[in-house]
Amino acid sequence: MSEFITMAHGNGGAAMQQLIQDYFVEAFDNPILSQGEDQARIPLAELTQQGEHLSFSTDSFVIDPIFFPGGDIGKLAVCGTANDVAVCGAMPKYLSCGFILEEGLPLSELKQIIQSMAETARLGGIQVVTGDTKVVAKGAVDKIFINTSGLGVIPKAIDWGVHRIQPGDKIIVSGTIGDHGATIINLREKLGIQTSLQSDCAVLYPLIERLREVDGVKAVRDATRGGVNAVLHEFAQAQGLGVTVDEQALPIRQEVRGICELLGLEALNFANEGKLVIVATAEKTPEILTALRPHPLGENAAVIGEMTTDRKVRIRGVFGQSRLLDLPTNEPLPRIC
Amino acid sequence: MSEFITMAHGNGGAAMQQLIQDYFVEAFDNPILSQGEDQARIPLAELTQQGEHLSFSTDSFVIDPIFFPGGDIGKLAVCGTANDVAVCGAMPKYLSCGFILEEGLPLSELKQIIQSMAETARLGGIQVVTGDTKVVAKGAVDKIFINTSGLGVIPKAIDWGVHRIQPGDKIIVSGTIGDHGATIINLREKLGIQTSLQSDCAVLYPLIERLREVDGVKAVRDATRGGVNAVLHEFAQAQGLGVTVDEQALPIRQEVRGICELLGLEALNFANEGKLVIVATAEKTPEILTALRPHPLGENAAVIGEMTTDRKVRIRGVFGQSRLLDLPTNEPLPRIC
Repeated sequence: MSEFITMAHGNGGAAMQQLIQDYFVEAFDNPILSQGEDQARIPLAELTQQGEHLSFSTDSFVIDPIFFPGGDIGKLAVCGTANDVAVCGAMPKYLSCGFILEEGLPLSELKQIIQSMAETARLGGIQVVTGDTKVVAKGAVDKIFINTSGLGVIPKAIDWGVHRIQPGDKIIVSGTIGDHGATIINLREKLGIQTSLQSDCAVLYPLIERLREVDGVKAVRDATRGGVNAVLHEFAQAQGLGVTVDEQALPIRQEVRGICELLGLEALNFANEGKLVIVATAEKTPEILTALRPHPLGENAAVIGEMTTDRKVRIRGVFGQSRLLDLPTNEPLPRIC
Repeated sequence: MSEFITMAHGNGGAAMQQLIQDYFVEAFDNPILSQGEDQARIPLAELTQQGEHLSFSTDSFVIDPIFFPGGDIGKLAVCGTANDVAVCGAMPKYLSCGFILEEGLPLSELKQIIQSMAETARLGGIQVVTGDTKVVAKGAVDKIFINTSGLGVIPKAIDWGVHRIQPGDKIIVSGTIGDHGATIINLREKLGIQTSLQSDCAVLYPLIERLREVDGVKAVRDATRGGVNAVLHEFAQAQGLGVTVDEQALPIRQEVRGICELLGLEALNFANEGKLVIVATAEKTPEILTALRPHPLGENAAVIGEMTTDRKVRIRGVFGQSRLLDLPTNEPLPRIC
């Protein structure tokens, strides 16, 4: 086999079959995938034991660069979709992968990405059961794009969604804000800031599992592209409500604060890849924090604000002054995920 | 809104929300999608009524050009995945869509593609229930790539797969070979052949439904990238068997024959986007042809060969001479789907 992806790896013929066998089937090895059919065949009985609704989600990953502190495009592709599947309360179980590869991509890089996906999936209890590979000529895509779609089951007792949000509900974030975005911007803009900062890229199901066991949770989202700010706007708009965030309550790492200050950007707009934003009843909030904080992914969980009736998203500063927190209209950080 | 895709359409903020609402939600309108959550929530009861196994498949579409006689990348993205879901006997029900858009793509083209997807899905009884949109800078992707992942249910009585193939089984194609590949190559290589030829791009479930009602079907695949030839090799390899194809029996349109002759290519290697390759017991073959032919998608269905024990894929010519039918090692036609 050549050391680079060639057009023949995408033609449906011998080279493609070999790539699939040696790279994908080898790494993702499981009984459903190894049937070698055009589709995964998943026993429904296993699913219906867990609940009454399937959770089905999809995400494409186009991040630049493809390797970064704390992860790579492969790990991100597993975490991102697993988290979208999970934030309705579902345990993510099955993933599909669609690869679009640029002619000339080193096979060593592809291997590293696939192994990272396989490892992340294995740790998360997730099986990659079906896939697709396309190769396009040099210049028609930038290195590698990955789509993953995921399946899980929502337990019967769980009904999380924006429809349950009411004024007075509290807003919790599960940890520090903006780590992923700050890591990528530092790398890409060559800010040259020496830092131990890394992407928070993680499968969040262990936190979701804890949230399933407490009362008072109303809606959960993972704050990726658009940051916590985008999620707050989604929560507000869905119910015709508002949000007030308390600036002092925001858990933000020193390094992220530094990068924000340097660039005049807002950590609330930075992407995260391992953080939940949770809306919960005020009275259950302490219990929810107690459930989250013993887990490493939730140790910095904090209440950052509450739902209001004024149809605006506001942030209240250190001296009590409040300002509007608009969504950025331009793209502050393209290809963040 | 601008007339072109801008980076702001992919930033998770206001422009992206507006694009999703005005273009995607509007066209794909259904109760699951309009919940506006990060994942589709699908009632499992609806699925378990239909069978015991879920069929789950994914495909990315990178075809060039994005509009062609008989379809466009949107129609193709619905048909391609619907067919991969269906060839195990499942009725395709739900699709996800992941769009990767190039900055500068005309919104009018995006709209046309989305409408084509919506129309194809509606006619096929398929709902687009979840999606994702990414925008990358000009030059990082060629216009638009689409991933779709699909779900359906395999009826309890159906067990189609390569594991059931035996020597002596007959091979049926559901219609003319190579229409899609010939259409794209004529367009892209600017052969300038004036022809009414068009892509056969179609949702094949209506034929699958007919196959579910007869006995003797053992394995079914749709012959896309790599053509009928790639499927024959997959069938042969899976069971350590061989195939002999009868050249005279191949249903090939005159226009496709002409293009093949001009370029010295083999129609068996050309992609199809609306053709099944079926392995069936010899005695049930007439019944299967009778089931397929009354439907417009199956009117040219034909027996083209049979499974053998010699571990080779061979084609027998007009004068009885036989030659090996190898898989092409180079890419004859990149970005065909």
